[in-house]
Amino acid sequence: MKIIESDLNSLKRLVQRKTQQLTDLKVEDAVRRIITDVIDNGDAALKKYEAQFDKVDLTEFRLPQATIDAAYDQLDQKVKDALQLAKRNITSFHEKERATGFVDAEQPGVLRGQKLLPLQRVGLYVPGGTAAYPSTLLMSALPAKIAGVQEVVMVTPPQPDGINPAVLAAAKLAGVDAIYQVGGAQAIAALAYGTESIPAVDKIIGPGNVFVATAKKQVFGQVAIDMVAGPSEIGIIADETADPRQLAADLLSQAEHDRRARPILITTSAKLARAVDANVTSQLKVLPRTAIATEAVNEKGFIAVVPQTQDMFELMNTVAPEHLEVQLAEPTQYLNLIRNAGSVFLGKYASEPLGDYVAGPNHILPTSGTARFSSPLGVYDFVKRTSFIQYTQAALKKEATAITTLARVEGLEGHARAIEARFDQYYDTED
Amino acid sequence: MKIIESDLNSLKRLVQRKTQQLTDLKVEDAVRRIITDVIDNGDAALKKYEAQFDKVDLTEFRLPQATIDAAYDQLDQKVKDALQLAKRNITSFHEKERATGFVDAEQPGVLRGQKLLPLQRVGLYVPGGTAAYPSTLLMSALPAKIAGVQEVVMVTPPQPDGINPAVLAAAKLAGVDAIYQVGGAQAIAALAYGTESIPAVDKIIGPGNVFVATAKKQVFGQVAIDMVAGPSEIGIIADETADPRQLAADLLSQAEHDRRARPILITTSAKLARAVDANVTSQLKVLPRTAIATEAVNEKGFIAVVPQTQDMFELMNTVAPEHLEVQLAEPTQYLNLIRNAGSVFLGKYASEPLGDYVAGPNHILPTSGTARFSSPLGVYDFVKRTSFIQYTQAALKKEATAITTLARVEGLEGHARAIEARFDQYYDTED
Repeated sequence: MKIIESDLNSLKRLVQRKTQQLTDLKVEDAVRRIITDVIDNGDAALKKYEAQFDKVDLTEFRLPQATIDAAYDQLDQKVKDALQLAKRNITSFHEKERATGFVDAEQPGVLRGQKLLPLQRVGLYVPGGTAAYPSTLLMSALPAKIAGVQEVVMVTPPQPDGINPAVLAAAKLAGVDAIYQVGGAQAIAALAYGTESIPAVDKIIGPGNVFVATAKKQVFGQVAIDMVAGPSEIGIIADETADPRQLAADLLSQAEHDRRARPILITTSAKLARAVDANVTSQLKVLPRTAIATEAVNEKGFIAVVPQTQDMFELMNTVAPEHLEVQLAEPTQYLNLIRNAGSVFLGKYASEPLGDYVAGPNHILPTSGTARFSSPLGVYDFVKRTSFIQYTQAALKKEATAITTLARVEGLEGHARAIEARFDQYYDTED
Repeated sequence: MKIIESDLNSLKRLVQRKTQQLTDLKVEDAVRRIITDVIDNGDAALKKYEAQFDKVDLTEFRLPQATIDAAYDQLDQKVKDALQLAKRNITSFHEKERATGFVDAEQPGVLRGQKLLPLQRVGLYVPGGTAAYPSTLLMSALPAKIAGVQEVVMVTPPQPDGINPAVLAAAKLAGVDAIYQVGGAQAIAALAYGTESIPAVDKIIGPGNVFVATAKKQVFGQVAIDMVAGPSEIGIIADETADPRQLAADLLSQAEHDRRARPILITTSAKLARAVDANVTSQLKVLPRTAIATEAVNEKGFIAVVPQTQDMFELMNTVAPEHLEVQLAEPTQYLNLIRNAGSVFLGKYASEPLGDYVAGPNHILPTSGTARFSSPLGVYDFVKRTSFIQYTQAALKKEATAITTLARVEGLEGHARAIEARFDQYYDTED
C-alpha cells in the first residue's frame, strides 16, 4: 500500500472529494422509455423486457410461497442459526431507533403536535447473481417491518438456476410479504407506478446496476428512494498498540468487495504502517478474491502517517468513511472526536465483518463521503411525520395581526382575507 | 368549481397521480457545463455567469453585514413584531423535534449505540423577485439552527433594486451566518463544491427555477438536497356545519400562490358544496391575484361530494395533500383517520394561513402526493446518525461462527478471515 507522510493540510486536500456525477444521456433516454412503457402497458411491458434482457418467458411474476418455504426448510441448519442470530440482534438494535410524535399544549387555546406513521408499502430491489446477499435482505426488510410498514415486497431479476435459496430464506425470516421475479429499470418502474401484478410502493430501497440506479433517480418524486450507494470503504485509526495482522485482514475484508473499494489506514506509528503493509502483501497472496482486492488496495487504498492522535481523527473526518475502526487502547475515549462516519467499530474485537453480519447496527451505510450528511439505513427511513394545529377563536385573534401583516408584506392578500373571514363573524357575534 | 358526485372508487381513480418526470436533456446538459465550470474555475465562473444571466458585474459576492443590519433596523415595527412572534412559535415547536441517540448495553460484553450530530454547514437557496418570502427563510433557517448546524449560509440572485429588505431582516432574525449574491445553477454548484469565496456545504435547501432544480438533482450525492417542491395544495374535509365563506377564502389562499395550485374540497354535504362554489366565484372577483387563482380553481380545483365521513378521509388519503383542513364539528376525533397529509389544520379557527406564518409547525411541506412518504421540513433534516459497537473478546467468540458461516455463504472469505485473525491469537494466548 502507498504510505504517505505529510502535513495534515496536504493530507486533507488529498482525501477531499469533488466528484461530479456525469449521467449517461443514452442510458437516461433508454430508461425513460422503459418507464413510460411500464406506465402505459403494465405487465405486458414487464414481460417484454424480461424476455429481452433476462431471456426468460415468465407467465407469473410472483414467486410461489412454496418455493420460498422450500428454500428455507432446505437451508443448512448452521446458516439458519446464523441468520436467526443476526435477526435477533438487528431487531433489538433497531427497535431502539423507533421515535414517537409529540403534543404541545403549552399556550392557552393552542394545540400543536406531530404524529408519526409508517409508510404503507416498501419495495426492496435485490440484484441478481453473486451481488444478492442474504445479510443485506435482513438489514433492509427488518427495519421496515419494525417501523410498521404493512407490506414489504421484493423484486429481483429471474436467474437461470432460480433465485439464491439463502436470499429466499432470509426474505422469509425477515417477513417479506411477496417476491416478484423482475429486474432492471422495468422493476423500478413497476414498483413506482404499479402494474396489474405488482402493487405501487411508497419507497424503493436497494442497489443495482446503472439502469436500476438511473431508474430510481427518474422515479424519485413519484416514490421515495434511498441513497445511491458507492463502493465499500473502511477507514482504520490505529496506534502502535494495534495488531498489524488483524488490521491487514480488516482492510482486505472491504477491499475484496469491489475493485473500487477504498481501504485506508491512518496511524501515528510509521512502524505500524510498514508492518500492516507487509501483512497486506502476504495476506493478499492467499485471498480467494485476490485480483479484486489487489486492485482496490493499489488504486484506492493508502496508509497515512500523522504526528498526533487528534490529527488521525481530523483527517478521518475529512474522509468521512462508511466504516470506521478505532484501534486504540481506549477507543471509547475518542467517540467525541468522530464527526463523520457511517458506523464505528471500537477496539480490537470490533472487526468490521462483525457489523456486516450479526452485531445489529445496519450495514447499509453512507458511502463516498456522504457520512457528512447521511445516516445508516434505519427505522427512521420508513416513517413520515404529519404536523397538526388547533386554535380557539381567542388564540387566533391574538396572532391575527401578525398573520395578516406578513401575508400583505408577501403580497398574498388572499391569505390575509382567510384569517379575516374568521373575524368578521367574530365581530358579528360580538355586536 | 367542478362539483363531482360519484362512487368512492371512481373518485379515487380520479385523484390518483402517475406523473412521469420528463427532464429536459438540453437543460441537463447546460447545467452540467455550468457545474463543471464552477468546479474548475470557482469565483471566476460565478462572476461570468452572474454577468451573463443576471446582468450584474459583481466585485464581491458576500453581502456586507451593514446592509443586512440596515434592512433589519429600517423594517416597519409591525412587520418586525410579526416576524418575532413567528420566530418564537417556530422555535418552541421545532425544539420538540430534537432527537437523541441511545446506548444499548443489554448483552454481556457488548456495547452498541447510535449518536446524533448536526450537519456542519447548510446552504439556503432563496429565489429572486416576489418568490422570496421572509416567512420561508424563518421556516428553513430556524430548524437548522435548532439542530445545531454551525453555519447557515444563504444564496440569492442579485436584484436590480437590492435584495428584498424583509428577507434580509428575516435572515438576521433567523441567525443566517452569511448571504451571497449569486443565483441559478452556478449558486448550487458553488454550495456543493465550494469556491474561493463561498464555502462548500453539506446540504442545500430551498426552491428555484428549472435550472436550480436540475442543478440540485445533479449535485445530489456530493451534498444532500431537500425534496423538489411542486405547486401548493389545500385539501379541506368539511360537513354541513362548516362556514362556506371561510372555506372559500381558505381555498383561494392557496389558489393565489400559483396557476398550478390545487384547491380541493371533499364534503358529505351537496348543499355546502354549492355554497362554497358560489362564495369562491364572488370572492375571486375582488381578489388581487384573481387571474392566477381563477386558473388554479378552474383547471386544478374540484369539490367532491361523498356519502360518508369515512369516505372523505379515505379519498383525501389518496390525494395526500400538502395542507389538510378538517372543518368538522369535533375535528380532533378524526386524527386517527388521517394517513397522508403534510400539515393538518383542525377546526374552524385553524385557517391554513395561520400555519403559513405564525403557528410554528413548518410550512415547507411535501407536495404533489409525496406526503405518502415525506415529512414537513424539520430539525431531523439537519442531523445525521452514526452507529457504534464495541465487543469483548468473549462476546465476539460467541458470535464468531455465525459471522464466518454467513461470510462464506456470501463468498466473502476475507470477511471470515478478519474474524479468525482475532481467534488465532486468542488460542495462542490460551496455549
